[in-house]
Amino acid sequence: MSLRVDLNCDCGESFGHWQLGLDEEILRLVSSANVACGFHAGDPGTMRRTVALAAEAGVAIGAHPGLPDRLGFGRRALAITPEEGYDLVLYQVGALDGFVRAAGARLGHVKPHGALYTMAAKDDALAEALVAATRAAGRGLIFVGMAGTAHERAAARLTVPFAAEVFADRTVLADGTLTPRSRSDAFVADPGEAAERVVTMVRDGRVRATSGEWIAARADTVCLHGDNPAAVSFARALRERLGEAGFAVAPLQSLDR
Amino acid sequence: MSLRVDLNCDCGESFGHWQLGLDEEILRLVSSANVACGFHAGDPGTMRRTVALAAEAGVAIGAHPGLPDRLGFGRRALAITPEEGYDLVLYQVGALDGFVRAAGARLGHVKPHGALYTMAAKDDALAEALVAATRAAGRGLIFVGMAGTAHERAAARLTVPFAAEVFADRTVLADGTLTPRSRSDAFVADPGEAAERVVTMVRDGRVRATSGEWIAARADTVCLHGDNPAAVSFARALRERLGEAGFAVAPLQSLDR
Amino acid sequence: MSLRVDLNCDCGESFGHWQLGLDEEILRLVSSANVACGFHAGDPGTMRRTVALAAEAGVAIGAHPGLPDRLGFGRRALAITPEEGYDLVLYQVGALDGFVRAAGARLGHVKPHGALYTMAAKDDALAEALVAATRAAGRGLIFVGMAGTAHERAAARLTVPFAAEVFADRTVLADGTLTPRSRSDAFVADPGEAAERVVTMVRDGRVRATSGEWIAARADTVCLHGDNPAAVSFARALRERLGEAGFAVAPLQSLDR
Amino acid sequence: MSLRVDLNCDCGESFGHWQLGLDEEILRLVSSANVACGFHAGDPGTMRRTVALAAEAGVAIGAHPGLPDRLGFGRRALAITPEEGYDLVLYQVGALDGFVRAAGARLGHVKPHGALYTMAAKDDALAEALVAATRAAGRGLIFVGMAGTAHERAAARLTVPFAAEVFADRTVLADGTLTPRSRSDAFVADPGEAAERVVTMVRDGRVRATSGEWIAARADTVCLHGDNPAAVSFARALRERLGEAGFAVAPLQSLDR
Repeated sequence: MSLRVDLNCDCGESFGHWQLGLDEEILRLVSSANVACGFHAGDPGTMRRTVALAAEAGVAIGAHPGLPDRLGFGRRALAITPEEGYDLVLYQVGALDGFVRAAGARLGHVKPHGALYTMAAKDDALAEALVAATRAAGRGLIFVGMAGTAHERAAARLTVPFAAEVFADRTVLADGTLTPRSRSDAFVADPGEAAERVVTMVRDGRVRATSGEWIAARADTVCLHGDNPAAVSFARALRERLGEAGFAVAPLQSLDR
Repeated sequence: MSLRVDLNCDCGESFGHWQLGLDEEILRLVSSANVACGFHAGDPGTMRRTVALAAEAGVAIGAHPGLPDRLGFGRRALAITPEEGYDLVLYQVGALDGFVRAAGARLGHVKPHGALYTMAAKDDALAEALVAATRAAGRGLIFVGMAGTAHERAAARLTVPFAAEVFADRTVLADGTLTPRSRSDAFVADPGEAAERVVTMVRDGRVRATSGEWIAARADTVCLHGDNPAAVSFARALRERLGEAGFAVAPLQSLDR
Repeated sequence: MSLRVDLNCDCGESFGHWQLGLDEEILRLVSSANVACGFHAGDPGTMRRTVALAAEAGVAIGAHPGLPDRLGFGRRALAITPEEGYDLVLYQVGALDGFVRAAGARLGHVKPHGALYTMAAKDDALAEALVAATRAAGRGLIFVGMAGTAHERAAARLTVPFAAEVFADRTVLADGTLTPRSRSDAFVADPGEAAERVVTMVRDGRVRATSGEWIAARADTVCLHGDNPAAVSFARALRERLGEAGFAVAPLQSLDR
Repeated sequence: MSLRVDLNCDCGESFGHWQLGLDEEILRLVSSANVACGFHAGDPGTMRRTVALAAEAGVAIGAHPGLPDRLGFGRRALAITPEEGYDLVLYQVGALDGFVRAAGARLGHVKPHGALYTMAAKDDALAEALVAATRAAGRGLIFVGMAGTAHERAAARLTVPFAAEVFADRTVLADGTLTPRSRSDAFVADPGEAAERVVTMVRDGRVRATSGEWIAARADTVCLHGDNPAAVSFARALRERLGEAGFAVAPLQSLDR
């Protein structure tokens, strides 16, 4: 059996005149693209262009819906109801889907952005609403989230395909959650070490927490960043090491999950 | 041959806490609903609720995309490029389509709102962009616009189904355009007179302009308003008179255009 | 010594084409107006017109800044930093102050709106930021908030004038906080009973909690609502009863606090 | 008599997470800063930081209000009424003024941005509204615009101080308006040539149009750009050449206009 893993990146996060991210570079290094849908970032024109870039790069295209907080880039928790969560995900996924279909492509997954993602990981009712919106937006759409959280439970309850995500450049605490950005050991700076961690997670199903102990981990897809030249180099190095370790990079739809 | 005409109304124009329009009342009187899509009015929750109302009332559902100018309710001309027009229509129609499909219904038409509508009537490149976005959003979607304007020319060029709209409560100038709202003879206040005008347009293909002369007119669909109790009474009276004149009210999809 | 109390109302909460509130009616019944500043509600034109109405009615004018969440009407908690709170209050108060000065009037107080108000009541750092912004916006501006909360502590620490607010139509729990809207005993529906409660708070410094026990209360200003005809009748009745009880209604600036 | 000229730049045009412009670099090279006020660009936090940068650099601070079109960066004409223009300028200038006063500085001028600027140059009623808002926002505020246009006429009619602006890197047509960006001769790429043109305008009151003929020009202030490293080098070179030509760079307030 060949070892396969999906690499995903957030993209299309420019807004009007404001450019953000090195989408062209990073899209050549991943197998799945999460496209911002106009609430936390992105706009109709940026969405069309990003979908075209992703289609051209041959990567799987997913929606990356966020909170209606452009000023805060969708990173500030907002006390929405589950119903509001459902509505804003269905709206954004539908909007992106229009561009994807117009490009002759097919939407494959939904991954909530920023605070919407982290809020839903801890809130079963909200997670269920986001998963329900994903299901309403299209049969077979994969919900991308964190294993062992409300994300996965909601997908299981609603029998929506689920893909477990890990972060290449972030460490985890003993309970499996991400080490807060405020801690000095929150990030993995070295691509070699990051690749080693990813390989261990995908192949062995475990990762070493910041406390030193080994904990269970599951990785169908690995999140990369592409917001600065260093991040792109990091992604390139990581991808090479994964290849050396015998991993094929492949989109979620092709994985045997 | 039976005489048939579609009655359409704009709806879903509330925004968050702000309510607007008597959607429940007016939706019982029309055969097609144009649902605001979140740019000039409407929001994800309002869209979901409006689609449910329309589905329950058994009317055909269309998208009513507008300019990104909530403060001006989409009524102020904005110098967008045709490409920007394409993008904002495709975005909004896609977003609405998500709610329509989730409700088990099917999107039937697209009618631009306010300044976007009037700008496109006079601008062939913009009209073509809006019609192209309609086509990209879904095969068979009908573009609703004014006969004899760039709306109709664009639909013909792109072979997109077109429905000619007239306004029940507005008069026209000798060139077929709407009498400006600033003129005292811009509006038809009496439902009986309005019904008579509509019957003449649908049956005889002509209307008397404010100048007194008869000009050609074509009406596949008649726009009603439902933003105040008087408008609802007007719509009710108009519908009755059309029935007395032998007209069946039926959605665009069923018309032999 | 005469008994005096300020009556305040939130106003200017329309947005563009969407109307909200019976400002003309309610402004005749209060002594202070809290004008929305464009983030949760209001817009430049509405602000100008509301300031003119308030000036004409001869009431004191204050700013009513809210969270940047128009869709949620500023009622959803948003995880902002104290610095972000400072910035958004200073921005909004400055914007309103332009209209107030242009009208030949003088801004008198600042009262945060909705979730910003309730979040700051429980968060000393945020409250301090909002009070600091109030101080930066103008010498002598009164900060309106709830007695005994972080609102009052922050004003004391920064030596900014503070006015204690109570709500005419809401009950309180034994700890002095508002009874949640979800409980059946959250509201005081009868104007006579509301007036009696207000009189007792202003004159005797106490109020009966929903638990039945008497707790300390302090009321420099009483918040009324004017969002529907019943609310306006309620306000009118309350004002009359206060008059009968010997209270003069007077703006905060004239109170001996 | 010493030769003096003001150099101004637009700044504070970031928005939330999106950075734009090299404000720190360019603010060291100019004598006046036009700070975006949150409608076309900028946000409360960016405004506070930009005012601090400008104050630290010792430059005069002005407001740079734009149309409410963040997606279009305020560069798309929007059909506003003069009253709407008045309101949006007064709102934005007031908001900025809060930050300026909080920083212990003093607001000195108002220069409309983008399409608002160009629309007002050709529309006397709109220009008068913008100038009236400037006057309402503060006594003595200078309105910055183009000589010989509706800008200057409105300032004269309302007796508001006016400063005539020219653009260092743009050519003009025989009628004094800017050569459209679409023409190949719209820009002056060489700093030496640009400096020569500026010197001629300030000292001799004339400029050579693209048609070859000399036309009258007036320059109290010269607009520089700082949105990319080349623009900053250009500004640096221009400033040096002006110095060599005997010009002192000084803010508008100090000019004998």
